[in-house]
Amino acid sequence: MAFSSTIPSCDTSLLLKRSNKGLSNLPKPIFNLKYVPAKVQASHVVSTPLSKSFQYQEVNNKTETIPLPVFDFDDYMIRKGKQVNKALDESVPMQHPEKIHESMRYSLLAGGKRVRPILCVAACELVGGTEDLAMPTACAMEMIHTMSLIHDDLPCMDNDDLRRGKPTNHKVFGEETAVLAGDALLSLAFEHVAAKTMNVSPERLVQVLAEMGNSVGSQGLVAGQIVDIDSEGKKISLSDLEYIHIHKTARLLEASVVCGAIVGGADSESIENVRKYARYIGLLFQVVDDILDVTKSSEELGKTAGKDLATDKATYPKLMGIDEAKKFAEKLVDQANQQLASFDPAKAAPLYHFARYIASRQN
Amino acid sequence: MAFSSTIPSCDTSLLLKRSNKGLSNLPKPIFNLKYVPAKVQASHVVSTPLSKSFQYQEVNNKTETIPLPVFDFDDYMIRKGKQVNKALDESVPMQHPEKIHESMRYSLLAGGKRVRPILCVAACELVGGTEDLAMPTACAMEMIHTMSLIHDDLPCMDNDDLRRGKPTNHKVFGEETAVLAGDALLSLAFEHVAAKTMNVSPERLVQVLAEMGNSVGSQGLVAGQIVDIDSEGKKISLSDLEYIHIHKTARLLEASVVCGAIVGGADSESIENVRKYARYIGLLFQVVDDILDVTKSSEELGKTAGKDLATDKATYPKLMGIDEAKKFAEKLVDQANQQLASFDPAKAAPLYHFARYIASRQN
Repeated sequence: MAFSSTIPSCDTSLLLKRSNKGLSNLPKPIFNLKYVPAKVQASHVVSTPLSKSFQYQEVNNKTETIPLPVFDFDDYMIRKGKQVNKALDESVPMQHPEKIHESMRYSLLAGGKRVRPILCVAACELVGGTEDLAMPTACAMEMIHTMSLIHDDLPCMDNDDLRRGKPTNHKVFGEETAVLAGDALLSLAFEHVAAKTMNVSPERLVQVLAEMGNSVGSQGLVAGQIVDIDSEGKKISLSDLEYIHIHKTARLLEASVVCGAIVGGADSESIENVRKYARYIGLLFQVVDDILDVTKSSEELGKTAGKDLATDKATYPKLMGIDEAKKFAEKLVDQANQQLASFDPAKAAPLYHFARYIASRQN
Repeated sequence: MAFSSTIPSCDTSLLLKRSNKGLSNLPKPIFNLKYVPAKVQASHVVSTPLSKSFQYQEVNNKTETIPLPVFDFDDYMIRKGKQVNKALDESVPMQHPEKIHESMRYSLLAGGKRVRPILCVAACELVGGTEDLAMPTACAMEMIHTMSLIHDDLPCMDNDDLRRGKPTNHKVFGEETAVLAGDALLSLAFEHVAAKTMNVSPERLVQVLAEMGNSVGSQGLVAGQIVDIDSEGKKISLSDLEYIHIHKTARLLEASVVCGAIVGGADSESIENVRKYARYIGLLFQVVDDILDVTKSSEELGKTAGKDLATDKATYPKLMGIDEAKKFAEKLVDQANQQLASFDPAKAAPLYHFARYIASRQN
């Protein structure tokens, strides 16, 4: 049974418009829930090791569960992760000048979860495409993400020493090389899609390249970054926080999913459906990130924990309390998965589970 | 009369291969020239205010001149410059978040010579295309160039305070914004071509986007930067110097010309011809830059002069002497223009004059 019938829908546009109205304007009932242990999970719902995720029950005692299709998500992530890592390794071969390629490879191959590339492949396969069609675009998404991490960590930005459990790029290679490695990864992302994608029409590739560019630039990732920087040490509203995360985090996840669907041959309606899905999981990703920053150690996260608290940075737990933030995350999982209703459930399984995975990730 | 018949051709591949052999391997006769005053210029050669450029005479007294077609190059540069500036202004409208757009516009609209975008338009028109077809690509080239300047000027890179006669981007907006403005301009370059180009086939646009990406990345501009940084304070050979400049400067000029030709509808032979032309003027550009650094004041240049000398950076004047560097520049003008032999001379006129213009520029 889907949740859409019992919980008023959260209008996606609320998550996207830069308005004066914040998350406080989301329909009240979304917080009218309490958590129940996973053991009451219905038998038709596959319990994957990743699904420590919450189930929930309305306070009026009408129990609901999300009907996840049978699917081994752990295996899926391992298989796709291997393929992505192989393709990433090949995308930046060691060559002259060695230093820049070492630096690019150091961060690109540092073993992240590959959420963006796997989402890209999953969206391509959702609409009938193959992994091969999506792989150059999937790699490009990871290149862009890595660029943003390298530049974020710079002393003039977040000044971080630790990333994915390793010293940050500039700590190893120096600041000037870190700036250039980011620039090189960003330009390679576009070159890689344009030069390495096979069996996708140029029309679709041009669409992908426009979407990618938009997701990084001054209306995308960079927009989120600059507002984030400007808000440090200031009291900011939920709507500003939402703006930051939609741009800083959600936009690239959205581009990953949308571009995957485009190279997979999706029609415009399907592209819009997966775009909405991606917007929900994008915001979810950041809410969970904020929760982890409060609840986990640096060792567990593989990066400096408690930093947001220390720097007086606005976060969801700080603005709505840790429990409400967790409930909000749950709500976003449901909203995301409702966008997949029109697709073949078997093909949509990876994306259904992705939302739960993001909600329940521990680092 | 073309020079090709009297002066042995300098094999383009010498300028492009990363070999152990440097410029010292260029055919000896190129330095076997002496300068003669411009007044001996043949009557059919239009004397533009920009043509203070050298003519030359072989030491065996066979006088030769470059047969420049009649063309008002000053007027051309003014007209095209205005069009480019208008298009650039429109390409980054002021919008939220204001700070990043102010920062992007500050550097993008700082009044450079627009060499790259005008070359792009000129190459498009050379092969039968129109200004409109090329303009988004032309703007993209200036965005990439501006990104490279903003990032180059950062304290962790060249640490420059002055650029185009104005304080550098990070001096005005802060380092973090300067890093982000560069990132945003770089991604916008690709988005702009993909989203704003009209009446060019997607096949050609994908080619353009691949060429652009390659020109910036770890085999292009960034490659030149990293080798340049690594060579500071060290004795470097002419071949290393050549490598730096071909990548740091020439590659983006090459991409500008090649991409202009692609959007203009050029066949592959024409694309290769203009690529060779661009490689010569690309190297020429840097040789002249080095000469100006020695011979001009900061005020005249609009940026810090004598910096290369002060930082013990390898330059052409330092490695071959100022007079030989000037002669080498002249040789490159001829080599460049020889690549245009197969085109309609009237349509090639802007590019013929461009080479002279680059050789004779004063800042």
